[in-house]
Amino acid sequence: MASYMTGSVAPSEDKNSPSRATATTSKQSAVVEVALRVLLFLGSLTAVVVMVTSKQKELVPFPPFGLVPNTSRFTDTPAFVYFVAALSTAGLYSIITTLLSISALSKRGYSKVLALYIVAMDVVMLAIVASAAGTAGGIAYVGFRGNSHTRWTKICNIYDTFCQHSAGAILVSLFAAIVLILLILHSVFTMYRKIPN
Amino acid sequence: MASYMTGSVAPSEDKNSPSRATATTSKQSAVVEVALRVLLFLGSLTAVVVMVTSKQKELVPFPPFGLVPNTSRFTDTPAFVYFVAALSTAGLYSIITTLLSISALSKRGYSKVLALYIVAMDVVMLAIVASAAGTAGGIAYVGFRGNSHTRWTKICNIYDTFCQHSAGAILVSLFAAIVLILLILHSVFTMYRKIPN
Repeated sequence: MASYMTGSVAPSEDKNSPSRATATTSKQSAVVEVALRVLLFLGSLTAVVVMVTSKQKELVPFPPFGLVPNTSRFTDTPAFVYFVAALSTAGLYSIITTLLSISALSKRGYSKVLALYIVAMDVVMLAIVASAAGTAGGIAYVGFRGNSHTRWTKICNIYDTFCQHSAGAILVSLFAAIVLILLILHSVFTMYRKIPN
Repeated sequence: MASYMTGSVAPSEDKNSPSRATATTSKQSAVVEVALRVLLFLGSLTAVVVMVTSKQKELVPFPPFGLVPNTSRFTDTPAFVYFVAALSTAGLYSIITTLLSISALSKRGYSKVLALYIVAMDVVMLAIVASAAGTAGGIAYVGFRGNSHTRWTKICNIYDTFCQHSAGAILVSLFAAIVLILLILHSVFTMYRKIPN
């Protein structure tokens, strides 16, 4: 995003010229973008792995049969399935865009139009990740606290590890959402700086 | 957002000049922005009103006392409280930004820096609205389908009106999220057009 203007270095090649300074700033800006995209990948991957490995087997009371073994998996909760799907999409997207931004860094910037597409996709991805964090968070809250009005009992007193994994994954997804916000703001600020006064 | 460059109309005042054409496009772009912000306000307001008016009184089985009257309110579900808080914030925000964009329209554009702040706030607001839609949607899904694994029973067979209101409010919040995405893309595209090739 940041580096699409680096190709148009000014005619003057004087080391102290403003154009030279702009090119350097663009390069730094592109490095920041690559770093943010790598963070997004790490965040998405961590969230997916932590959620998928949340499986826990426990003996639970099941009247009139007494205690029976029961396994809690993320696939039992549609909200967590959506969460894994959304964060996997974000992870895959971050791999593609990290490679694009690295190639932009080495080839002195990608095209203006590609930059526009990427910021648009970043915005859509933010909506997906934020909604997934909300969905899983809402369900995890019921698991942790229960809801006496709807008579939904809490389950985290039984499935403690399962709940810890879910909570961890949701926190990491919030981090991923914040990284996406920073990426969009970074892109917008980069565009803003290119606008002549 | 769209109209901050209209103030800098080119020296040439020829009707067919490219600068004149740019100013007209900026004006149209500003009108689109105002329309989108009004839509965001209407969407947020509708979602809040529909959710808040979801109260429903029903006779529910409560062993061993038989049927007892019970009222379902959005305040019984923390996810719905968050939903109302988030959408109210979006509604308030949309009032302020609609007024700003209308004043920008009449005064021939607001400043470049204000435009930057507004797009940044739009992005944060999108994350809030998307997460609220996700949180409420996740809970509404459990209310509608139940979850046999966690033994959370569905409640929508009893509280039908309550569930219809919740579902309606969530759908409208998705519309609000889409309007926010369009607003951000509109702002980014407007910036993109100002960047010299």
